[in-house]
Amino acid sequence: MDAISFARGIPAPECLPVAELAECAKAVLERDGSVVLSYGSTLGYAPLREWLAERHGVEPGRVLVTNGSLQAFHFVLEVLGGEGRVLVERPTYDRPLKILSTAGVEVGEVAVDEDGLDVDELERTLEGPHAAFLYTIPTFQNPTGSTLSEERRRRLAEIARVRALPVLEDDPYGLVRFEGEALPSVFELEGGVNVIYSSSFSKTIAPGLRVGYAIVPASFTPELEDLVASTYITPALLAQATVYEFLRRDLFEPNLERVRGLLGARRDAMLEALDRELSGRARWNRPEGGYFLWLELPESVDASALLPRAAEAGLTFVAGVDFGGAPSSARLAFSFVSPTEIDEGVRRLARLMAATPARV
Amino acid sequence: MDAISFARGIPAPECLPVAELAECAKAVLERDGSVVLSYGSTLGYAPLREWLAERHGVEPGRVLVTNGSLQAFHFVLEVLGGEGRVLVERPTYDRPLKILSTAGVEVGEVAVDEDGLDVDELERTLEGPHAAFLYTIPTFQNPTGSTLSEERRRRLAEIARVRALPVLEDDPYGLVRFEGEALPSVFELEGGVNVIYSSSFSKTIAPGLRVGYAIVPASFTPELEDLVASTYITPALLAQATVYEFLRRDLFEPNLERVRGLLGARRDAMLEALDRELSGRARWNRPEGGYFLWLELPESVDASALLPRAAEAGLTFVAGVDFGGAPSSARLAFSFVSPTEIDEGVRRLARLMAATPARV
Repeated sequence: MDAISFARGIPAPECLPVAELAECAKAVLERDGSVVLSYGSTLGYAPLREWLAERHGVEPGRVLVTNGSLQAFHFVLEVLGGEGRVLVERPTYDRPLKILSTAGVEVGEVAVDEDGLDVDELERTLEGPHAAFLYTIPTFQNPTGSTLSEERRRRLAEIARVRALPVLEDDPYGLVRFEGEALPSVFELEGGVNVIYSSSFSKTIAPGLRVGYAIVPASFTPELEDLVASTYITPALLAQATVYEFLRRDLFEPNLERVRGLLGARRDAMLEALDRELSGRARWNRPEGGYFLWLELPESVDASALLPRAAEAGLTFVAGVDFGGAPSSARLAFSFVSPTEIDEGVRRLARLMAATPARV
Repeated sequence: MDAISFARGIPAPECLPVAELAECAKAVLERDGSVVLSYGSTLGYAPLREWLAERHGVEPGRVLVTNGSLQAFHFVLEVLGGEGRVLVERPTYDRPLKILSTAGVEVGEVAVDEDGLDVDELERTLEGPHAAFLYTIPTFQNPTGSTLSEERRRRLAEIARVRALPVLEDDPYGLVRFEGEALPSVFELEGGVNVIYSSSFSKTIAPGLRVGYAIVPASFTPELEDLVASTYITPALLAQATVYEFLRRDLFEPNLERVRGLLGARRDAMLEALDRELSGRARWNRPEGGYFLWLELPESVDASALLPRAAEAGLTFVAGVDFGGAPSSARLAFSFVSPTEIDEGVRRLARLMAATPARV
């Protein structure tokens, strides 16, 4: 029996536009090979920076294209860290937590609920010790899948503005929306003075390309140039140029539509199966996009303790505690496995739950 | 008048095998796209790791392929640093110096002469405070172009073995040899127990690809997996897979021959022009390969002070002090400009020198 992975927060192989990217890589090397194959583009491949600048309504000088957006997190931490705590969501993406812990940075947590970051709690937290910056994923958050409401976005933008609180708004999933209206980014609402926006093409084209980016204040760029040059001299330009060619050929929007269709069907399959199998025995949310939903098991259940038996039953997921969440919570990724596998995976989960004493 | 750059230690555009790489990128995406475009290959693209393992006679598990070898330096520093000084050559490649300084690591210097690292001085230095590791570029060193003699290689390997001194042997230029017999690496002589070997395809295929690698002790790989995953999750696989395809198609050796021919002619042009223009007024070495030669001006001349006038005269180079060298020294790169430009550049340098009071 093959293990069904609700753990892997990565796109299914069928989401990857392999043939198109093969053409794009060849074409852009033929057209602009001597730039792509040389040093020099410290802050990223210039045509891609220009495309992103236009998309986000900023000067190209404010766009930093990195080897994935986690690398951008490192650079932002170097520029903004050093004074005071870094505020993060509880729960949040585990890799930044680990980076902060390794760097010995003090972390302050602010809860996330159905409507995203609890802005009231943020305000109370800001009364405490100085915060270097806030790291937030407002849309289809990793791990919860929850989305910051428009009202809270406006309040967060206001807080950033009034208190000059630096905010790193990480938005890798925003474009992977299956339904509902897109909300304005905190970056847009605030005007991009204190809010840095980061995203990537990992979820919209392919993660292995490692093309992430950040829109930073223009004043950051000299320090970032130094940091980049001291880290890897020049980013991975072949991937960046290939992404640019993909955009230039107008392949991005059709690909996004295809990805939305594929992943939306997976979310639907997961919701249907959960309704059928676990209604009344657990709670979960209904994200309008992204890769994940958040499962809350009865409080008496320790999700981590379920994992070995889940593995035996051919199922993997990530316990919520890995993201700083409650012991009874779990992250279910619907991005990687097919609707049929999702259905079977939820059945396995339900059988596992049935064998577990629980009170809801 | 266009400025002639003896500063840029990068290959001339005509060294870059653009058309071949365009074919390779397309072919490898078509053949192995779902691996190349996904997460997962933390330590590098597996077929490339296997190729490198075979070339260096080690297990693939010991090969780490990174986004350029400077990134490998960061990782090695994280694993080996922390206790004691890092020993470097005087002069040495400026980027590692900067990284060490930013990281607040204490540095110990060991002189380099015509025959490379002064091994006697190294032994004396090792009597002092504990050394975390030694960073050395034994072949066609940056910045001097000098090469560690075979006798010294054997002594360095012996020192590493007897004292269990970790050594990072950086060898980006070794294959770019125009004449003479290749010498065994310190890594080979020592057996790869204490010596880590790093290199890249920046000088043998193309720098913009950012494909570097290190051969590390097997005991390092768990920590390296964690470090890589926390830094950029997965390296730039498209470039790594493209390099692999280039190797697989047996394009590497012919390309290397072509690059050796192009760069050897440039070194010859520089040596000829120096003989003609500066004989008796300065000293320089005759590297058998690589990108650089080392110019020693009369001791009364401050090479940094020459730079503004050099720029006015349409010439750039890097002063030796930038690498920790003597104020009267300079690094001349012959890799980037054509033989004709090299000839003209040396003429400009000679005119500049003639206008400078000097004693040899």
